[in-house]
Parts: sequence; structure tokens; C-alpha cells
Amino acid sequence: MARLGINQYGKAETHLVRVVRDGDAHVVRDLLVSVALSGALEAVHLEGDNSAVLATDTQKNTVYAFAKEHGVGTPEAFATLLARHFVGGAITQARVEVREVAWERLGDHAFTQASSEQRVAVVIASADETWFASGLGGLVVLKTTDSEFHGFPRDRYTTLKETSDRVLATEVAARWRHDGTASFEDARGALLECFAAHHSLSLQQTLYAMGSAVLEACPTVAEIRLSMPNKHHFVVDLSPFGLENPNEVFHADDRPYGLIEGAVVRDDAPDPGPIWAAYPLV
Amino acid sequence: MARLGINQYGKAETHLVRVVRDGDAHVVRDLLVSVALSGALEAVHLEGDNSAVLATDTQKNTVYAFAKEHGVGTPEAFATLLARHFVGGAITQARVEVREVAWERLGDHAFTQASSEQRVAVVIASADETWFASGLGGLVVLKTTDSEFHGFPRDRYTTLKETSDRVLATEVAARWRHDGTASFEDARGALLECFAAHHSLSLQQTLYAMGSAVLEACPTVAEIRLSMPNKHHFVVDLSPFGLENPNEVFHADDRPYGLIEGAVVRDDAPDPGPIWAAYPLV
Amino acid sequence: MARLGINQYGKAETHLVRVVRDGDAHVVRDLLVSVALSGALEAVHLEGDNSAVLATDTQKNTVYAFAKEHGVGTPEAFATLLARHFVGGAITQARVEVREVAWERLGDHAFTQASSEQRVAVVIASADETWFASGLGGLVVLKTTDSEFHGFPRDRYTTLKETSDRVLATEVAARWRHDGTASFEDARGALLECFAAHHSLSLQQTLYAMGSAVLEACPTVAEIRLSMPNKHHFVVDLSPFGLENPNEVFHADDRPYGLIEGAVVRDDAPDPGPIWAAYPLV
Amino acid sequence: MARLGINQYGKAETHLVRVVRDGDAHVVRDLLVSVALSGALEAVHLEGDNSAVLATDTQKNTVYAFAKEHGVGTPEAFATLLARHFVGGAITQARVEVREVAWERLGDHAFTQASSEQRVAVVIASADETWFASGLGGLVVLKTTDSEFHGFPRDRYTTLKETSDRVLATEVAARWRHDGTASFEDARGALLECFAAHHSLSLQQTLYAMGSAVLEACPTVAEIRLSMPNKHHFVVDLSPFGLENPNEVFHADDRPYGLIEGAVVRDDAPDPGPIWAAYPLV
Repeated sequence: MARLGINQYGKAETHLVRVVRDGDAHVVRDLLVSVALSGALEAVHLEGDNSAVLATDTQKNTVYAFAKEHGVGTPEAFATLLARHFVGGAITQARVEVREVAWERLGDHAFTQASSEQRVAVVIASADETWFASGLGGLVVLKTTDSEFHGFPRDRYTTLKETSDRVLATEVAARWRHDGTASFEDARGALLECFAAHHSLSLQQTLYAMGSAVLEACPTVAEIRLSMPNKHHFVVDLSPFGLENPNEVFHADDRPYGLIEGAVVRDDAPDPGPIWAAYPLV
Repeated sequence: MARLGINQYGKAETHLVRVVRDGDAHVVRDLLVSVALSGALEAVHLEGDNSAVLATDTQKNTVYAFAKEHGVGTPEAFATLLARHFVGGAITQARVEVREVAWERLGDHAFTQASSEQRVAVVIASADETWFASGLGGLVVLKTTDSEFHGFPRDRYTTLKETSDRVLATEVAARWRHDGTASFEDARGALLECFAAHHSLSLQQTLYAMGSAVLEACPTVAEIRLSMPNKHHFVVDLSPFGLENPNEVFHADDRPYGLIEGAVVRDDAPDPGPIWAAYPLV
Repeated sequence: MARLGINQYGKAETHLVRVVRDGDAHVVRDLLVSVALSGALEAVHLEGDNSAVLATDTQKNTVYAFAKEHGVGTPEAFATLLARHFVGGAITQARVEVREVAWERLGDHAFTQASSEQRVAVVIASADETWFASGLGGLVVLKTTDSEFHGFPRDRYTTLKETSDRVLATEVAARWRHDGTASFEDARGALLECFAAHHSLSLQQTLYAMGSAVLEACPTVAEIRLSMPNKHHFVVDLSPFGLENPNEVFHADDRPYGLIEGAVVRDDAPDPGPIWAAYPLV
Repeated sequence: MARLGINQYGKAETHLVRVVRDGDAHVVRDLLVSVALSGALEAVHLEGDNSAVLATDTQKNTVYAFAKEHGVGTPEAFATLLARHFVGGAITQARVEVREVAWERLGDHAFTQASSEQRVAVVIASADETWFASGLGGLVVLKTTDSEFHGFPRDRYTTLKETSDRVLATEVAARWRHDGTASFEDARGALLECFAAHHSLSLQQTLYAMGSAVLEACPTVAEIRLSMPNKHHFVVDLSPFGLENPNEVFHADDRPYGLIEGAVVRDDAPDPGPIWAAYPLV
């Protein structure tokens, strides 16, 4: 009458800090690691038979042990090692997501967490394939000019005025899929450089330009997806106080916000496989 | 060389409070409404041509105006009205998500927000079809017993002990797709009743039982997806203090957590259409 | 040239869940316990001499062990036991704050966390005295009418219109100091009853009325402090759409918010001692 | 029988973004401004008479208007202008708190919010006096070595092992009071430099050293208060997997955390006046 549908399980947000103490100057790596496994898992769902269920506690232990045995390397490399390890037996697919925050050096052994921006790596492994997405979250950017918005349709409910000069602010979340060889620094650099240089007629246009810039900078990126909330900055009406406000004083609002999302796909992009599958499901 | 891929845009999290003042006893409705539109939007992405871009500000205005013109009704009904309104011209698909929190009555005009649990409705409309999912978020539940976990495989990294009596706690997020007629109260009631009555051999088994209970209680639900973090409660080792701890004193940990996700699908379930598409994309 | 000023230290936010399994129906208690100790602590600050520093890890262990040895009782009773335990030697004052969330029964062994409202108890002990404050946080309330705001002064920067009918919403945080005998239920009931019944000319007036109601309901409460953000609900201007809006459709804004704070003090209130001292300091 | 006790009210968290467009390279300032007024406010609390209550909406307008009329300058200068403006009539004391986040330049008109660290200024004005505190929040720092913790007392509930090498991590919140002339950069630099160079025998000792360093670097700082949570990093036991872990692999825990707080006071420090008064009250 009913059956098990899409499913996955795993340990989420294991907070691993790995210190490399090889020389005088230590290195510190700070990662949140989330594992999601799937496969032939009917028995546990229907009968509570755990014989195929690698405990999420074991997954956590594996994350810590691998950090010692293999070191961390790039987030993509660490995720790949883990994902491939978990595949086998009933588990036919493993997804590992790593979110890393950077620590800036203050001295040989002292660091400050300069930013809450996150570097993201998602790796999905099956018995004979591996899929890669890299990305970032929490990259907050703002332009004080070079942003327009006009020519939009007007219906009964439209009150917004057209503007040829507005503040544009967003918090970029991005994922780009590739064959495992794309340079994170090149992709991030292209996003920032394009945002700074772009004269925007809409946030959609800016998003597409930023995505295109990543494809140009990174030949092995097949597709990039961007999610860019329009964090509205409203010009405050100072006229009741006898003051002009030529785009100098703004109210930065929290909600609602525009949410602009889109992908740029290379023409010859290979099939994405499972890399865009939802995590979490709900 | 590259093309626009999947995309959508809209106003997110418009916070609407609607007061119904018909009789002595007012009614208060509190909703977050998020709109996402898609369709023939190449012009804006590639050229900054906004002629097909209904401003997100207009979408917000429409939410408020519709709340007056049509009233709110059920979250599903309100989302349907809005989604169908936004389809037309370049816009071939509209997704509206409503999240409602309940206010409990203190008096004719006074209320308290008794819970942060959210009732969710997602409606997607195209020119000639409508898809529905209902659900909830933030439903926090706990069992003090009737939960076991054993029989899981042991590898080199396994240290977890088997247990036949543990605390099981989770925060349920659920979405069930249906034809627009499913009773929210019946579905929620089935989730709670099953959780309370179920003797759990694993959280996966409990999840599947809860999903099945909803399918049984709601004949028009075709599929339900559940996301249930295992909020670990660890038995504190009190033996260094000469004390026994027969499952009485627990440390409730924040992270990491197990994340158990799964779907129960009715055998004759129709095609889901776009209802499970990711929002947000990244 | 310089000296150690005000200081305190301790383990914060130990998350204790205590299950009472005496009969068929279990009971679950869910507490965050924060300890702050002070006294003759110059040696550790100036020289790193830890001989007077009871480790915060030990404090955490004590919380768990006491939950087994003595049970939890009321939050005030549990905080008192702990505070008195920690005083001695260099430690001349101990502050224990307990924040409890309630679990509502679904069955003998199953519960749902019905609300995120917190019951709070603060107890400070010295060698020969104990001070008590009880309170709550996260009590969200709203009135759809019976709230006015007019007669306020108008200066060059005033644009707000006077109103004789507005929505009033707030999230009450309260602390009341007493001799250890005040009934939490009576105090909370008085706050809610007064809020519901009060015809408000300003949030300050409502705050004072609510505080007075607690003093009336609880003879041993000497003083109550309330912090009530004015969570603004703005009437949406629907006139551009040809619609009236007689206080039916509101935009609930996040920030900024009014923050109204005040105390009601019984005329013969004893000296508060250290009960209102800041925690945390910064 | 009862009377009005301590009280204050005002608009909190007005989010002001001020763009300076004088030359080719714009400047962007991003501030949260919170106002709290107090004085002869019995009438509004007891009778709902608002004749002395400058509306919080007016306060918000004033923040925006002043940002245009006077510019923002340092956070301390802007807070001072506002605080002095609000004093008069029934209002005998005004407290203004500014929290600023920095935007790093990407180009003439483009910026990225490099860090979520906040620079804080608190100014309190009465008719004839002004008090100043400056500070910061969200400064996250970590040492991978040069931190010990031993020699602490052992009681029945102590299980913590002594260590001569641990990771020390904290998120510094600091406020230093001064006469309005202290350099923020000098104070922040002293905190970071001391943290990096200090060999720690306890977090209390590090806190005191950091506070002393600020007093040394800033001759007009009279007192500094620091709140430093001990964000525990636990060495993961890898011995079950046959692995050594010489302080290389850590689990970073969320809660509980040690909370270490203290002040360093210059010997000839003037009376603090109201600068350390609680905000918010509860």
C-alpha cells in the first residue's frame, strides 16, 4: 500500500578543529562535517533492523580519526576521502558536506576568526563515481551605486518607483559543480571582481554576470548556482525635516527581502548526477 | 557557450498579521509569506531587461492587498489564491510558501503565542495545474523510554554501546503532498499519536511509522517527507561520584546530531510534479 | 597602578535533562544551569595561581550529580542547593541561574515542548545570606485593540500620528525579587491577566500595571523588573489599491523596536543586595 | 504602597547605513543605534500621560536626520551628539549605544563585510555630564598552545585532568570607560597583541593581562571590563582506533562553556557614574 521513498541519514555538523603542529608556526583548520548515507535501507525503516545502519556515532568517530590519519587537505579532498570510505555493503551512496571557516594568523600559535564566511565542499560518492560541488556562504557584499532598477511592469498593486541609482546589497550563497579540479580561490575571486565591476540593471543580471565570470575563470566548472537575497536599503525620507537625501542615509531592513536565485550552465556541461539533490530533504 | 539554468525569484518572508474584527472576539493570523516566480526570464538575466520582472515589492503589496480583499482562510487557500494570481505572461510557474504561527486566546482581544511551531503550506501553480504540500516545522518531541538502538554493524571506528533503553528526542519537520484536500489537524494528530505510542528500535523506524500513520489518517496524502534530527541526550556518567544513573540524568547536546530523513509514498501516488523542488536553490 | 575590579566566573548553560521514573508516568525536566562564582580571586588573575579556582568542569559535574542526589524540585530550590554548595573558602558569593522550558505530556513517556517560553530562577548565596529572583522570558503577547498612543510631544523630528486604536505586541522578560516564597504561577498568571484586561494608553502604563498586578498577587515579591520590546505592527497603507484598512492588515516589523523597561517597587521593599547585578558583565 | 523603580525607554536597533559620496571613492558606515531615555516619567507609567514621552519613532527619525545633518564621525561622536540632543525637560539622562560593523573596500563603490565583529560605543549624557565607554563584541580568537590549566582544587565532583598544553579559544566582549579621548585602534590592538603573546596559566590570567595591556596602551582608559567565554576544544580520544592524538584533533563544543568575566581598574580611576548600568534591564 505504501513504500519507502527517498531517504538518507547521517551525522550532521561534527565540529572538527585540526591543528597542524609541524613547524614553529601552527596551522588551524575549523570544519563542520555533515554525512548523509543512502542505499538499501528498507530493513531499518520497516522492521527496525539496524544491521545495515552504520551508527552516526561511528561516522563522527571516523571524521575525527581520518583527520589524524590522513590530515585534512582541501575541504574537497577531505570530503572525498570520507565519502568513498562510507560506500560499501548496503550503503550505495555517501554525501559529505564540509563547511570551513578561516582563521587569520596573529602569531605562530595565535589566530583570529576574521570572518564568518564559509567555504563549502560537497562530495557525493557511489561505488564507481564521484561528484563534486564547491561553494561558499555568508559572503556579504554591497554597492553604493552602479545599480539601477526600472522598466519593470506595473499592475494594480505596483507602487515602487523606478530608480537609476540605488544601493545593492546581498549575501551570496554559491555552489559550483566541477570535476574536482576547480580552484576555489579563482571562483571566489571571480565572484567578487565581477560584483565590484558590474553595472547592475537588476540583481538577476548581476547574478548571471557573476556566474558567467566563474565559468570563465574556472574551465572545469560545469554549472554554478547562486542564491542572492536582495537586502533592501531604503532611502529615508528626510523631507519632513527640511533635509534632502541624495542617496546618503538608508534604512537597512531585515524582512521581507527579495530572493534571487539562478544557475549558469556551460553548454557542454555533463549530467549533474545527484549533486544538486536536496540536503536536508525538508 | 553558457546558458541560464534553473532560476526563480520573489519576495521572501513578508510578515503579514491579519486581524479579523467581525465580532466581539477578534481573530489574529500571523503568516510569513514567500513567493518564488519562474518562467521566460532570459531577458533580465542576460540583458537586464526588466519588462517581465514583476517587482518583488509588487508581490509584497499583493500579499497585503489580498489579505484584505479575500481574507486569509487556510494557509493552503491563501497560498493558492496568490500562486494562481502570479501566473501569466512570462511567469509560467509560481510557488507560494506560507508559514503560520498560532496565537492562543487570552481574551476577546488578547493573545499569547503559545508555541513557535510553524504550520506550513506550499502551493505551486502553473497555467493549468496546481500542486500542494502541507507540513509543519519546529515540532519538538521526546520519549523518555520505549526507544532502543542495537544490532548496528561494528567497524574499526565503532565505540557506541548498544542500548535497549534510551531517550529519543527530535524536532520534526514534515511536508506531505496531496490534492489540496488533506486535513492538517488529522496529519499532525497522526504524527504525535504515533510518536507517543511507537516502540522505537531506531529513529528510522519511528520516522517510517509516523509517515505511514499520516498516510493512513489522510487518504488524499500521496507522499510524506520527514526530516528528524536525533537530538542526542547522553546519560551522564556519575560513577566517579559514587552514584548510579539508571537513565535519570542526561546531558542534552547541541551538535553534532544525527539527521534522519525519509519519505513514505503511497503505492498509487501520482507524479509529484515540481512540489519537491528545492527552495531556496542553494 | 591598576587593580582587579568586579569579576566572576563559572560554567554557563549546562543543559541538564532530568527524568523522574518513579511511576508509570515519567516526568521530564529540562534546564539550562549557569553558575557564576566570585570572591578572593586575585591570585589567579594576577599570577595564574589556580588554587582557589574550582574548575568550571567541576561545577558542571556538580550540577549533574546534584540532579541525581537531591532531585531538581523547583528551579529556585535547585538553584539554592547549588549556590549554597559553591560558597566556601575563597568563594564568598555564588550565583546560580536556572532557565527551564516546559514539556507537555503526550502520554506516559512521551512529551512535546509546547512553548519556548522560559521560567527563570536566580539565586545568589553568600556565607550567611541568600537572595532570590524568579522570572520568565519569551512570553509573547499581543492585543488587537484596547491600545492607544497620543498626547506625546512633537518636535522637529516627529512624524508619528496619534492613534486611539493600535495593535500592541511584546515579548515579556520579567524578574521579581522575593524572599524565596513567591508563587511562580501566581506571578505569571497576574502578568497575563493584567495584559489581557488592561486598556493601554502607552506600553509604559501597561508595564507598570502588569508589575503592580504581580505585587498584588504575590505578597512576598518586593520588586519586579520588566523589559518589554514594542514589536511594531504597522497598518499597511492599502489606499493605492483602492482598499480601506481599518486595522485589519498589518506588517509586523523586526527592527527597530521600542524597548520599554521599568520596575515596580513595594514601598517597604528590603535592600536588593546583589540580586540585580549584571550577568553577564558585558 | 508601591512606586516606580528604575526605568528607561527608547528605540532600539535602528539600522542606519550612511554613504559618504564626496569623492570618487564612496565610504559606507553601517550602524545599529539604540537609545534609552530616563527622567521624570512617573506620569506615563502611572496615568498613561504621554506628555513627557518623546516617541521612539521620533528618536528613530532623529538618528536618520542627524546622520545627514551632522554626518556620523566616530561612533563615540555620533552617540554623543544624539545623547546630548535627547536630554532636556523631563528627560534627565540619555544613553545611546552604537554598534558598527566594518565594510572592506572592493572598489570605489563596492564593499564586502569582512567580519561580523562589532565596534561598540556607549555614551550617557545628563544636563551637565557625559560618560563614555567604548568596546567591541564578536572578536573570536584562539591559541593552539601556550595555555595551561593545573593546580586547581579537587573535590568530590572533580574529574578534570590537569594540562600543561591546551587549546584556548574565546569570543571577546569588552567595554572600556574613558573621558572620550581613548583610541579604539590602540585598545583593540593591545587586546590582540596581548592575547597572541601571553603564556596562559588560566583564562582569568589572560583576561587580566589583556585588560592591563589596554590600560597601558590607552592612558585615558580608567577601567576595562571583559567577558570571555571559554569555548572548549576537547582533545578527541583516538586510542580506541589505535591512534595517538598529541593535541592535533579537537572537538569544538557549543555548550556548556566557561564564562570568565573581570575588570581591570586604574588606581586613580574616577567614579564610573552610570556608565556600567544594565542595558537592557532584564
